[in-house]
Amino acid sequence: MFDICLIGTGGMMPLPNRWLSSMLVRFNGKMLLIDCGEGTQISLKQLGWGFKNIDTICFTHYHADHISGLPGMLLTLGNSERTEPLTLIGPTGLERVVSALRTIATELPFEIIYKEINTDEVCTLQLNEYILKTCGAKHGVPCLAYSIETERLGKFDIEKALKLDLPKKYWNLLQNEQEVLYQDKTYMPSMVMGESRKGFKLGYCTDSRPTENIVLLVKNADLFVCEGMYAEKDKANKAIERKHMMFYEAAQMAKEAQVKELWLTHYSPSLTNPKDYLYVAKEIFNNTKAGYDRIVRSMVYED
Amino acid sequence: MFDICLIGTGGMMPLPNRWLSSMLVRFNGKMLLIDCGEGTQISLKQLGWGFKNIDTICFTHYHADHISGLPGMLLTLGNSERTEPLTLIGPTGLERVVSALRTIATELPFEIIYKEINTDEVCTLQLNEYILKTCGAKHGVPCLAYSIETERLGKFDIEKALKLDLPKKYWNLLQNEQEVLYQDKTYMPSMVMGESRKGFKLGYCTDSRPTENIVLLVKNADLFVCEGMYAEKDKANKAIERKHMMFYEAAQMAKEAQVKELWLTHYSPSLTNPKDYLYVAKEIFNNTKAGYDRIVRSMVYED
Repeated sequence: MFDICLIGTGGMMPLPNRWLSSMLVRFNGKMLLIDCGEGTQISLKQLGWGFKNIDTICFTHYHADHISGLPGMLLTLGNSERTEPLTLIGPTGLERVVSALRTIATELPFEIIYKEINTDEVCTLQLNEYILKTCGAKHGVPCLAYSIETERLGKFDIEKALKLDLPKKYWNLLQNEQEVLYQDKTYMPSMVMGESRKGFKLGYCTDSRPTENIVLLVKNADLFVCEGMYAEKDKANKAIERKHMMFYEAAQMAKEAQVKELWLTHYSPSLTNPKDYLYVAKEIFNNTKAGYDRIVRSMVYED
Repeated sequence: MFDICLIGTGGMMPLPNRWLSSMLVRFNGKMLLIDCGEGTQISLKQLGWGFKNIDTICFTHYHADHISGLPGMLLTLGNSERTEPLTLIGPTGLERVVSALRTIATELPFEIIYKEINTDEVCTLQLNEYILKTCGAKHGVPCLAYSIETERLGKFDIEKALKLDLPKKYWNLLQNEQEVLYQDKTYMPSMVMGESRKGFKLGYCTDSRPTENIVLLVKNADLFVCEGMYAEKDKANKAIERKHMMFYEAAQMAKEAQVKELWLTHYSPSLTNPKDYLYVAKEIFNNTKAGYDRIVRSMVYED
């Protein structure tokens, strides 16, 4: 099960009924959070998936609305009796920024591992059971777009297995990627497993102007979560000036990347009812949803 | 009009239905905030008194639950088009802590004035139209308790005014603390005004063990807002260990200080229904209220 939840969908400042943009991903019990603004921990508490299993927090960039909740989150993770290391990932400068914020969160019962990422390159990290990829986004400060892709084994090929001179009780080991030594012969998982299959792919992008690199990063994603800071056409110049995205620009990226579904997020505080403008995006990319706080999608493999 | 509002009443971590402890005081249009945790700006938004006229933010101490909302608050004050200086007040170390937090809130359209206060002394500051006094509280880190007292002129004494050889049209000037030069003679406000009268007095204390100094600071206050971190008697040792206060200890301080009314605040996240234990405080000091988010008291002079 691959669970995705938008913890908040607001930009700039937290509002009484809209938390700051953040996304939680849960896969095989472990959780990864992207961005942590003021109040993110409250929405997480409302969601009820717990805190202790959050082992990675990624940052798109270091504007306050994307990281101001970190000191409180670190203390809450500490209070959840987490002692395992926590991995923080973000653009270059991560350790400097987090160390400054930790002026008010000094004592933690776990180690922090920093992974600073160059926004000028496309980077790939192996994390738990998925692949995290990043590319630079186009914002006023160094900023990252993310993709997360689960790894998935091929199908077990019973025909191949039957041809091996190996008792059935060992098949399970091969299926779990272990070698088997039986009667002086070594059996490899590849002898019974088909080619690895496509897993789930998720794309996440705030804050940015549209770019070709982001389209490539989220290509063929099952779900693309993308900022739609402004919806009304007369805000197009503002979007360019402040390096944010319009609804129709997010939809255009989703179309070009041939993703299956688009969720909009990171709405301007002035955009009270994003759904009123959803049609603008749907005209370009029909399978668009106006993301809202704690919208959840659970994906399971169909084959 | 002297308006007081508890913006939040929680300790340690913000909860879905209880913001972190913070108090707003409004007097003659200007506002002073004590403490600014994660989410304080959201509760302020719900309150609806605006942001722009907050000209002073006081801090009791620099644990995250009392200051983690500052970066977002500064940016929101900036977005409210505030250009007048903002005064920050807190224990020694204020500028160092705030400068670290400003790593994520760099560009502000107003100047910040820092007033660092020694927690070993009783300090008095003249601010706007009230007197702010502080004394050290007893917590794990340097911490301040506050009192705020409005200044109030004496009554205009019409008998005295009639005895002066001064036309009535000048009386108003004297009443507004201005000297009047009339027919080569100088008339002073003191010639027509009675002795200055008692204004409103407000006391605020989180986080602390009870101390004699705090009792002296809040002596005869109209309202004393004091932490009641724990209510159940079996938490008394925890209160001592973590340097917090029990309901009955806050009530004992209120009684000794002979305040008119006590509001409890800064409840432990484990204390779900503070009202259930209110009787514990009322047994000692009857005029106690269990403070809650956005409880408001407006005081007007009665004479």
